[in-house]
Amino acid sequence: MKYTVDQIAQLISGKVEGDGSAIISQFDKIEEGKSGSISFLANPKYESFLYDSKATAVIIASDLALKNQVNTTLIRVADPYLAFTVLLQKYQEMSSQKEFGIHKQVDIDETAQLPTNLLVEAFSSIGKNTSIGNNTQIGQRVSIGNNVSIGENCKIFPGVVIYNDAKIGDNCTIHSNAVIGSDGFGFAPQSDGSYTSIPQLGNVVLGNNVSVGANTSIDRATMGSTLIGNGVKIDNLVQIAHNVEIGDHTVIAAQAGISGSAKIGKYCMIGGQVGMAGHIQIADKTIVTAKSGVTKSFKTSGLTLGGNPATINHEFLKSNAFIRQLPEIFEKLKQLDHSEE
Amino acid sequence: MKYTVDQIAQLISGKVEGDGSAIISQFDKIEEGKSGSISFLANPKYESFLYDSKATAVIIASDLALKNQVNTTLIRVADPYLAFTVLLQKYQEMSSQKEFGIHKQVDIDETAQLPTNLLVEAFSSIGKNTSIGNNTQIGQRVSIGNNVSIGENCKIFPGVVIYNDAKIGDNCTIHSNAVIGSDGFGFAPQSDGSYTSIPQLGNVVLGNNVSVGANTSIDRATMGSTLIGNGVKIDNLVQIAHNVEIGDHTVIAAQAGISGSAKIGKYCMIGGQVGMAGHIQIADKTIVTAKSGVTKSFKTSGLTLGGNPATINHEFLKSNAFIRQLPEIFEKLKQLDHSEE
Amino acid sequence: MKYTVDQIAQLISGKVEGDGSAIISQFDKIEEGKSGSISFLANPKYESFLYDSKATAVIIASDLALKNQVNTTLIRVADPYLAFTVLLQKYQEMSSQKEFGIHKQVDIDETAQLPTNLLVEAFSSIGKNTSIGNNTQIGQRVSIGNNVSIGENCKIFPGVVIYNDAKIGDNCTIHSNAVIGSDGFGFAPQSDGSYTSIPQLGNVVLGNNVSVGANTSIDRATMGSTLIGNGVKIDNLVQIAHNVEIGDHTVIAAQAGISGSAKIGKYCMIGGQVGMAGHIQIADKTIVTAKSGVTKSFKTSGLTLGGNPATINHEFLKSNAFIRQLPEIFEKLKQLDHSEE
Repeated sequence: MKYTVDQIAQLISGKVEGDGSAIISQFDKIEEGKSGSISFLANPKYESFLYDSKATAVIIASDLALKNQVNTTLIRVADPYLAFTVLLQKYQEMSSQKEFGIHKQVDIDETAQLPTNLLVEAFSSIGKNTSIGNNTQIGQRVSIGNNVSIGENCKIFPGVVIYNDAKIGDNCTIHSNAVIGSDGFGFAPQSDGSYTSIPQLGNVVLGNNVSVGANTSIDRATMGSTLIGNGVKIDNLVQIAHNVEIGDHTVIAAQAGISGSAKIGKYCMIGGQVGMAGHIQIADKTIVTAKSGVTKSFKTSGLTLGGNPATINHEFLKSNAFIRQLPEIFEKLKQLDHSEE
Repeated sequence: MKYTVDQIAQLISGKVEGDGSAIISQFDKIEEGKSGSISFLANPKYESFLYDSKATAVIIASDLALKNQVNTTLIRVADPYLAFTVLLQKYQEMSSQKEFGIHKQVDIDETAQLPTNLLVEAFSSIGKNTSIGNNTQIGQRVSIGNNVSIGENCKIFPGVVIYNDAKIGDNCTIHSNAVIGSDGFGFAPQSDGSYTSIPQLGNVVLGNNVSVGANTSIDRATMGSTLIGNGVKIDNLVQIAHNVEIGDHTVIAAQAGISGSAKIGKYCMIGGQVGMAGHIQIADKTIVTAKSGVTKSFKTSGLTLGGNPATINHEFLKSNAFIRQLPEIFEKLKQLDHSEE
Repeated sequence: MKYTVDQIAQLISGKVEGDGSAIISQFDKIEEGKSGSISFLANPKYESFLYDSKATAVIIASDLALKNQVNTTLIRVADPYLAFTVLLQKYQEMSSQKEFGIHKQVDIDETAQLPTNLLVEAFSSIGKNTSIGNNTQIGQRVSIGNNVSIGENCKIFPGVVIYNDAKIGDNCTIHSNAVIGSDGFGFAPQSDGSYTSIPQLGNVVLGNNVSVGANTSIDRATMGSTLIGNGVKIDNLVQIAHNVEIGDHTVIAAQAGISGSAKIGKYCMIGGQVGMAGHIQIADKTIVTAKSGVTKSFKTSGLTLGGNPATINHEFLKSNAFIRQLPEIFEKLKQLDHSEE
């Protein structure tokens, strides 16, 4: 990006103090600002950073009275944090906006239903009877199977694979090399100790405004659907097994794994590397701290869980405190034991 | 899919009671049945579901006497569960059966040895001196290196990468974005604290009937082979390091990691998010519960392990029970201590 | 590979004893040697293997006096281990050396700056204003975004995705299906419990001699850069979140996860499946044992950490030993309690 301070001030309805023609090419935190960067000062606690900052421009509050001289151009606004966020969002919109169009080297079935505005980048495939909503962007080397539906305003990044029959809502983002709809891990043991695979004939359904991280896998249901609710945000390298249901607006951090048929409520927060056993139910607004192993249902909403096997988190923390005191306990016991003799 | 009840009844040698011309388009559990779906009732315990079911058709036992009226068409068979499974398998075979043929936009070396019946979808590559068995399906955007051999009846899903020299048996399934044969993680520390990579010149060998999940990585051996036995089933996001050996018919759940040169026996069950240290040996029929960390060899077959570091699982569970009692223990100790004074 | 023993001896300046015309086609450990393989004997402790070995040739020390007859051809050198390593490296160089050239079926923007010697394999994309250094190899189906720079002598394996703005140094290796620069997992909670995404406008910077494993994800910074230092080695399926900094020559084993804004020092060793909380600092030369969960900063260099939450490892091990003694402690307490009565 390359803008003058004046152009940026106009975008956020700010008032320039200093050189309005200075060129801005990146965003930075105020303490990491350098020539060409723009930053902001929202919390007066960090005012000292302002006087040392090497940023070319800093967005500050209209009513902030300066104690010292500054070396940077200032943009005065009512709410610096809000103005900066607006600026970031506008920049992201502009920079991620691509021209619609379909690359020449693609593999699209003639029965696919495509909208007026659609981007399909090179080496992507779209299968039979698949429909895609308006304003959706499909990056390079994406595989979309048969009978898939994808909503409007979605962004599918390079390398994503969407198996047959998946349904994806509007405004979804799926990051690179994520896999949606691979077979559930279902195998029936045979009398000789070997396994035969159980047919996996269901699908995956993603609501609206869902985000899926890079290299994440979401398996299709054996029958019916693996359900990801509206507004669910899933980080990188997460495993969602067959027939799992995730309630609306639940957030799942990286490398967590949810086993088959588990039902997670709405507005939950699942920490990184958490494991969930199969067939359990977790109530709405449950928080599971990172690395916990949840082995049973917790049906009261709003709990914070921790440990492996997971319990109420403050009990887990208390047990941990006692574990650290074990050497002392052991020592005391020895003394008591001797004093008995 | 779209079939009449009569057509389905014929496939499973069943007798129709009700509307044989009704259209079936999906499978569902009996309690989740809806218009257009077919379900089954095997366990008499769930008979009440039958009378409430909204499924268009339900498969039931020939000898089941109905207590109430039903709203769905029935298909009577000797063994409803078996009949339903047969139906699922037949449907899966039909729906996953693709016409053989090689897409125009592929990159296949002229020295590759290809069979009569082969599917290669768009944007896939096959390297030098690589041979592929009959009836194998290679999805979109698969990279197969040089000197690879792949057996018959395999299904390789989109985005899979198979590095040079890998050997893959018959009837194997490899799900999307799995990586077979990347370099083992071997680095020799130098005197200045940096590392140089140790050449990884071995390969990966998969037996017959192996299943590999989405986004799973199996590293090549430093020398020799990383060996995955016949019938091994590996879930998504699993890490198999260099020179690991997995015995026949062992099952490994999602996000488990097996470190370099570990040898896992036959018929083992490795839970999700389990970690195995390098160079250890695990006997046949060992069960490792989810999230355990196995740090040493267990050479007696048939054990169930748990915890981190893993021990015999019932000892781990017992310790956990005691940990939960620690506050009580501590309290009692205090009392004893005071009573001494 | 196919070489005579004489040809190999010449490469490592060795002296042949036996049949110099024997054909060598692979490397093996001495105890696993078979017809056609070459091995080495460095440690006199394993001398007995020499007499049983089925390898066609074995590299041994010039001054080793044989006690029994051998069936294999010998190559005598001053340092057998060094000679064998040199042989492995020479072979790897030869076998991984590819002819430079750009495949016909690629998607390269006209503004990309490409060097004289460059390999771009089939179905790969290179974006706008992206520059690539000399002697770099880009495998099949790699997506490289806009404004990316990649140094010299890099190897990018099939399926890798490099998002816009990433900077990659010289001599880097990135294994298949790794993702560099996907969005950081940043979402701002709204008053109704839903989330909106926080724009992620930073990038990822990899130093020189960095290795990234298969299916690993490294997120771009929200602002500024996610920084991976020189010589850092990252295994498969690792998660590196936004704004993380990893110091030079740190090694990270498979399935570890580093949360947002964590700063890891130089020369650290992070074990497999380790989790690191966000915003913490870890000093240089810290060792974190496998599966540990590091929840706070450790600013003293050279510590070994273990457990979850992680403490000094020998304290974790001591606590574990005490946990195993809990049944005994409990029993003793009962006795004491009774003796009080």
